[in-house]
Amino acid sequence: MSAPVQILMSKRAAGHFGAGVATAMGERPYRIVLLEDVPADGSPCAIDVALLSRDVTGRSGKFKITEALAHFLDVLARSPNLAWVQTHSAGTDRPTWKPIKARGIRLTTSSGMATTVALSAVGGIIALARRFPDLADAQRRHAWEPLLEERAPRDLAGQTAVIAGLGPIGTEVARLLKAVGLRVVGIRRAAQPHLHCDETAAYGDLAKYLPKTDWLVLACPLTELTRGLVDAAAIASLPKGACIVNVARGEVISEQAMIEALRDGHLGGAWLDVFEYEPLDPASPLWDLPRVMISPHSSGAADGNYARAGAVFLDNLARWREGRPLANEASRLEAS
Amino acid sequence: MSAPVQILMSKRAAGHFGAGVATAMGERPYRIVLLEDVPADGSPCAIDVALLSRDVTGRSGKFKITEALAHFLDVLARSPNLAWVQTHSAGTDRPTWKPIKARGIRLTTSSGMATTVALSAVGGIIALARRFPDLADAQRRHAWEPLLEERAPRDLAGQTAVIAGLGPIGTEVARLLKAVGLRVVGIRRAAQPHLHCDETAAYGDLAKYLPKTDWLVLACPLTELTRGLVDAAAIASLPKGACIVNVARGEVISEQAMIEALRDGHLGGAWLDVFEYEPLDPASPLWDLPRVMISPHSSGAADGNYARAGAVFLDNLARWREGRPLANEASRLEAS
Repeated sequence: MSAPVQILMSKRAAGHFGAGVATAMGERPYRIVLLEDVPADGSPCAIDVALLSRDVTGRSGKFKITEALAHFLDVLARSPNLAWVQTHSAGTDRPTWKPIKARGIRLTTSSGMATTVALSAVGGIIALARRFPDLADAQRRHAWEPLLEERAPRDLAGQTAVIAGLGPIGTEVARLLKAVGLRVVGIRRAAQPHLHCDETAAYGDLAKYLPKTDWLVLACPLTELTRGLVDAAAIASLPKGACIVNVARGEVISEQAMIEALRDGHLGGAWLDVFEYEPLDPASPLWDLPRVMISPHSSGAADGNYARAGAVFLDNLARWREGRPLANEASRLEAS
Repeated sequence: MSAPVQILMSKRAAGHFGAGVATAMGERPYRIVLLEDVPADGSPCAIDVALLSRDVTGRSGKFKITEALAHFLDVLARSPNLAWVQTHSAGTDRPTWKPIKARGIRLTTSSGMATTVALSAVGGIIALARRFPDLADAQRRHAWEPLLEERAPRDLAGQTAVIAGLGPIGTEVARLLKAVGLRVVGIRRAAQPHLHCDETAAYGDLAKYLPKTDWLVLACPLTELTRGLVDAAAIASLPKGACIVNVARGEVISEQAMIEALRDGHLGGAWLDVFEYEPLDPASPLWDLPRVMISPHSSGAADGNYARAGAVFLDNLARWREGRPLANEASRLEAS
């Protein structure tokens, strides 16, 4: 215990959180190792704890890794003592995390963007319910086309939202939709009750609820339980005009079946932040479908995220030093 | 009291609410007079109570009156005993209401669309805060443009909304924005506290709050107090990037000053349901300004409005029969 704990982070993160690390570590000796100072020479490293901050991930995507992130992962791979990695992201399903998980290293996420993701999802629901895409289309034509008589939208209050996943995002979506007056059904591992849900059910029972679903909100992690959760049959069992909101992962729903159901009018619209392949192919039909709103995996982007992710890290660092359970430990979260 | 009360309404309204009228009137003799059956011959009428339902207003607008509405108003003008008119609309500022008001006839509105108007306004705020117009623009170009780093939107939670008008619409906007985590200042006739506001102030003190306003939400009736409430100086005193949401009346804000402030980037965006002239001129620059969302006076349109407005009428009809105060009496509402 006398060797200083070596904590890896970027220069930017150290600038923001260096003082917080000192507080969190208390009497325990430590050393902050700046990612930018570690040579890319393949030599062994002695990192114990690592913080992956947003600036390191940069524009890395589902199928693209920036140089900074590659360097970060390489340093982790060269650190045999590595005990714990904290990431700014909410999910750890990307292949980049496989080696870390395989080594049994603790991995914690940040729910710091959860409220923002949920806000975007609810904004998408209101936008679709209030026909914002139609209004935008009329606006481009400088056309005054009121939503009168048979064009009047349905009351949103009283409609039913089914939310798959009741982690921090799904919980916040449920809370806001209840405030708007919807009936909310939450889908989770087990059907235990939830503060903001009128009803809850297990993933295996989702099919029972689909025929009465107006809004299917996907807010679950990508796991063996949720991959392919919404297939063509599930989409077909939704009532005509139902809408999809996906802030989970593209792999949770069959994109092709969704496209067909949007095309033939079975689905009334979609607000999509995630896709099977990202960035979305410029040739994807999704871009041009009339009531589809595309968000480029940015539903959680907000200027306060960096500080929030840092706060989660610093809280966990104090927990880690004291041997208490860590918040947002990935293996635990995937069970929620 | 022995002569039956003559109640004017459209055939459609009678079909929907005839049974309810029987219940509301109890033992009191009455007769439903169908608007469509009253000849347009200028002869005197004996209407006591009139219901203006949405189907009669039809596509009447700020400066255009449909034939059905003109006939309705003509029948009222020919009814010397007229005691009370119930309208489906939330506002009674249009010139069509002047003769009714001048005769001292009781006039009640319907707040049945208030929650929908508020939902649209809050949807507009979330859409602007989450950059939906920018995303829609990228979508049209099939361009994947994440809102990363310096493009990340500001956290909406913690921002300040100033809501002018705390009637049923402003109250609901305040409630929802509090749920989203904003600081809410309510502006009303007098500064008495309000359940969903962190602070309240009188209209005369609005100027003090503008420099710290992120979202200026206009939800007030058009009265002598609110006409021209937001002039060029008021707009200039907002912080750079502030946004306007107008679900009140176009006359509450200087449209020209707003256009200039949107053009030069002082204002960050606007969600507009009402305009100085409606329908909005196809040549108005508002249509093409990048972060302006145009709603054609449809923020309250919803399929449940007809029934809700009818329920307000039936409740008021029972009150009227029993001599109790009427709900939503226009002269009272304008003082809120």
